[in-house]
Amino acid sequence: MSNDAISYVTIREVGPRDGLQSEQPVAAGERARFIDALSATGVRHIEAVSFVSPKAVPAMADPDTVLAAIDWRSDVTWWALVPNRRGAEMAVAAGIEALTVTISADPVYNERNVHMTIADSEAAIGEIVAIAGGRPVDAVVSCCFGSPYSGETAPGGVAALGARLLDRGVTELTLADTTGMATPARVRALLAECGTDVGLHLHDTRGTALVNAYEAIRCGVSRFDTAAGGLGGSPFAKGAGGNLPTEDLVHLLDDEGIVTGIDLGRVLDAVTVLREVVGHDVPGRVATFGPRTSA
Amino acid sequence: MSNDAISYVTIREVGPRDGLQSEQPVAAGERARFIDALSATGVRHIEAVSFVSPKAVPAMADPDTVLAAIDWRSDVTWWALVPNRRGAEMAVAAGIEALTVTISADPVYNERNVHMTIADSEAAIGEIVAIAGGRPVDAVVSCCFGSPYSGETAPGGVAALGARLLDRGVTELTLADTTGMATPARVRALLAECGTDVGLHLHDTRGTALVNAYEAIRCGVSRFDTAAGGLGGSPFAKGAGGNLPTEDLVHLLDDEGIVTGIDLGRVLDAVTVLREVVGHDVPGRVATFGPRTSA
Repeated sequence: MSNDAISYVTIREVGPRDGLQSEQPVAAGERARFIDALSATGVRHIEAVSFVSPKAVPAMADPDTVLAAIDWRSDVTWWALVPNRRGAEMAVAAGIEALTVTISADPVYNERNVHMTIADSEAAIGEIVAIAGGRPVDAVVSCCFGSPYSGETAPGGVAALGARLLDRGVTELTLADTTGMATPARVRALLAECGTDVGLHLHDTRGTALVNAYEAIRCGVSRFDTAAGGLGGSPFAKGAGGNLPTEDLVHLLDDEGIVTGIDLGRVLDAVTVLREVVGHDVPGRVATFGPRTSA
Repeated sequence: MSNDAISYVTIREVGPRDGLQSEQPVAAGERARFIDALSATGVRHIEAVSFVSPKAVPAMADPDTVLAAIDWRSDVTWWALVPNRRGAEMAVAAGIEALTVTISADPVYNERNVHMTIADSEAAIGEIVAIAGGRPVDAVVSCCFGSPYSGETAPGGVAALGARLLDRGVTELTLADTTGMATPARVRALLAECGTDVGLHLHDTRGTALVNAYEAIRCGVSRFDTAAGGLGGSPFAKGAGGNLPTEDLVHLLDDEGIVTGIDLGRVLDAVTVLREVVGHDVPGRVATFGPRTSA
């Protein structure tokens, strides 16, 4: 990479949450088995569960059972998605170390997804921050590059929302391309408004997730959400493609000489477990065809 | 794109040849219908047929029948793949304006693919150049980033082969990633040896085709082979993924403000024809989910 500013990329593995949430529900023990395979890869951040209503997202039921079954490795920061103060209280009680919260850059999407106005979601996030008691709280802003309901998202609006969320006490921001509408040009435009001290959460609907990550790294971004195997897609967003596959990003960064701390072979092992857990194949390309050096 | 040296990218549409060659054979009239849909997109270069043995590649049979059926638009340069002097003679007799020839950067692949040594293939290309009579002859060098038989390909060897081919009279070189082993780092390494006055022919086996094209454009490459719908893969190369989809590259470049002269909507129309012609869906992501602005 001609921009040599970034030498280390931090990956947060979201496969157990964003990867599985649209799947048919699987037993908590199976989810724990997948998580254990992931924590053996060297990844330092795992979003393991979500404390959402099991009626809303059946595949995310029983987070406490999952968390009781995993190997709680101390070299991993354990994240959970929480939708409200009750979810935050449950997560903290379960020993979760860091919280993700969501809000949409598109008010229409926010309304349809969580039935709240942006202002109400901001207030709820403030309450979660209070419950977090100093733990990291990452606000994952959906639809940062566009929304299936409202088309383009203005980068300035995302930046303003991000600033308000930081005022509410969130410790970091992650900008999400919920339905895969980003291109490198849009990545640059958004980062120009929001700065590069953000995470990116990319979906591969239109085949651009990897090139968008690449462009973001060139711009100076060093935090990414990815999902082993490339499963995923919001249960609320029609046409949402899978997450950027962890193994595809690690495969590219290994060849760039950019350190992730993650062992590609072990990610592929985790994908093997994932296939067993979900009972079908996965979209990730390197998982399907093997690393370049295996050809 | 922060590198603003490239403002125009020339795309050669290879869907009728590389896209269809691994498919079940379809009627010449159907292939012509696909070609006519492609020539209406604004693309200025189309590889329409191949004059290979129909025993070796049944889907490429009857090139003369295909060529007799197409709308022979004057704003398109019509290319054909020719394997030897007899193929070149047939192509010239059929009115083809420009020839692609293939040779592999990996001697083992060359041997298994065309049962010739590299030296024999070079000599055959020299004969084809003579028959071309001043028409453009593009040497498409396969396995430039690696081979399923021999692993890594040394960039210096590709550059040396390219120099010899130019000495033989080919007018241009296209570097092919036959089995999708390129990454941006490998693109930079190869271009450092070969220069940027080359075309790239990328396959998406490991999900890197688009990011590789993006990196190549940043480096100064302005010529690409792509296939509408992203069909393809060599019938001789196990594990070869589809070609870089035309619509995925145009979709990205449109948003970058890089001109291709190609109308994305018309490419998607051509993909609709392609689905009818081959009788199944295609892997291209923008063709599957629509352009970002349609979300």
